[in-house]
Amino acid sequence: MKRLLLIGIGAGDPDHLTFQAAKAIAATDVFLLVDKGEAKHDLSQLRHDLIAAHARDPYRIVEARDPERDRTAPAYTAAVENWRSRRAQIYKSFITDELADGQTGALLVWGDPALYDSTLAALDEVEAEFEHEVIPGISSVSALTARHRVPLTQVGRPVHITTGRRLAAEGTTADDVLVMLDAACAFTEAADDFHIYWGAYLGTPDEILISGPVTEVADQIRAARTEARTRKGWIMDTYLLRRTPPNAES
Amino acid sequence: MKRLLLIGIGAGDPDHLTFQAAKAIAATDVFLLVDKGEAKHDLSQLRHDLIAAHARDPYRIVEARDPERDRTAPAYTAAVENWRSRRAQIYKSFITDELADGQTGALLVWGDPALYDSTLAALDEVEAEFEHEVIPGISSVSALTARHRVPLTQVGRPVHITTGRRLAAEGTTADDVLVMLDAACAFTEAADDFHIYWGAYLGTPDEILISGPVTEVADQIRAARTEARTRKGWIMDTYLLRRTPPNAES
Ligand SMILES: C[S@@+](CC[C@H](N)C(=O)[O-])C[C@H]1O[C@@H](n2cnc3c(N)ncnc32)[C@H](O)[C@@H]1O
Ligand SMILES: C[S@@+](CC[C@H](N)C(=O)[O-])C[C@H]1O[C@@H](n2cnc3c(N)ncnc32)[C@H](O)[C@@H]1O
Repeated sequence: MKRLLLIGIGAGDPDHLTFQAAKAIAATDVFLLVDKGEAKHDLSQLRHDLIAAHARDPYRIVEARDPERDRTAPAYTAAVENWRSRRAQIYKSFITDELADGQTGALLVWGDPALYDSTLAALDEVEAEFEHEVIPGISSVSALTARHRVPLTQVGRPVHITTGRRLAAEGTTADDVLVMLDAACAFTEAADDFHIYWGAYLGTPDEILISGPVTEVADQIRAARTEARTRKGWIMDTYLLRRTPPNAES
Repeated sequence: MKRLLLIGIGAGDPDHLTFQAAKAIAATDVFLLVDKGEAKHDLSQLRHDLIAAHARDPYRIVEARDPERDRTAPAYTAAVENWRSRRAQIYKSFITDELADGQTGALLVWGDPALYDSTLAALDEVEAEFEHEVIPGISSVSALTARHRVPLTQVGRPVHITTGRRLAAEGTTADDVLVMLDAACAFTEAADDFHIYWGAYLGTPDEILISGPVTEVADQIRAARTEARTRKGWIMDTYLLRRTPPNAES
């Protein structure tokens, strides 16, 4: 049998790695690194660094090129599904051509593999014989709330995790909303009584944290975001919107 | 200045610990362990084991007794708030009496400190001079989805994280709902087209995983839950409810 590990590596800080993930890296024979292009160099550098730090000889690294994704397509889900099928092809080739029977392959997944990541769904489409395991990782959600030292959930209350597109389309559908994948600063749509805890490049030397009432800090976040994105060529940011003061309830 | 670290230790598996958390444990002079009583012995044992494995001499452990919480109170939030104020007193004594200036104290928090944990909120009530930092941890949510090898979020779709009480009161308010703190098997209220991914004692040798259509596995989960709870004296379980097949959308 061939074995594939999906290893969550945390959201940017090399020390987000868990011992479980380090052991999984040490147990890997062949790593598949999918290159996302020059702009996101820092992200692929972290993967190389973690392998260098924790892998055990003999091991190999196989590199593949990420299929282009049409980010301007209005049908976001369809574009992702198309991209995912092409990803599945890459995984299939990796399992079939690069892994021998009894060997362990690994994919290093950003943050936690369960959160807005297509690797698991793409693997479901792979027609090849293999077993797989998932190693949880520190998500950008945990990184964000830790850095701002705020809880994600309030006592007995729910939290809604959603995307920038959805927030723009639906507005704040809950008193506590965590937003990811927002390329268009949808937080500016939040009602006046929301507080925002925003973070970019969390866990990295470029980390930026801004918080305050949305009405007061929205412009500041937008400016910081544009400046950083221009300077680095890419940005990853996420934020928590919290209605304040929280509704009283018993 | 006195420094306090809130260290997320993961949801049961000692290898959930991150390198960041291990370094934080190594940097701690005094640990505060709050004892939850005999029944939850395994939970406090993990904390002792992690300290023994990663702390650096000289260090001290201070033990305190958890204030009793009225778990039968209908006003859940009020009961938690009352309990939290008494927790704040414990933290205040710890900071004031046990930490010298320049020293670092630590609290080892189960899972991720941001998720349904009152430590951060209790610290906000502490009237004492100190700085604090939060170290994110692997949550039971990440542990659950990893063990079931399912994504928490589907492409472009939101997820709702809530409590068993809320689920019982409000029903499934989204197609993907993650439920924690459910002592009453509220999943039996889910509509017929939901799938459940249930896990108890995740990351520990007692781990139990059950999944399937709610209509088919609800009784099995209830039976497993009752049996395990009786045998061990306590249980921690969590689950993901997912409407299936997912609604098509573009
Ligand atoms: C494709 S999703 C992957 C999320 C990842 N699986 C996780 O657990 O964080 C990418 C989104 O995650 C968020 N993100 C990931 N890493 C981040 C970081 N270091 N700082 C801020 N946001 C981050 C951003 O919202 C970004 O658009
Ligand atoms: C007070 S909350 C603390 C959650 C914790 N901060 C976390 O990140 O997982 C306790 C609830 O977390 C869930 N939980 C925590 N650890 C668990 C485990 N090992 N297995 C299953 N559920 C767990 C259960 O729903 C339990 O009722």
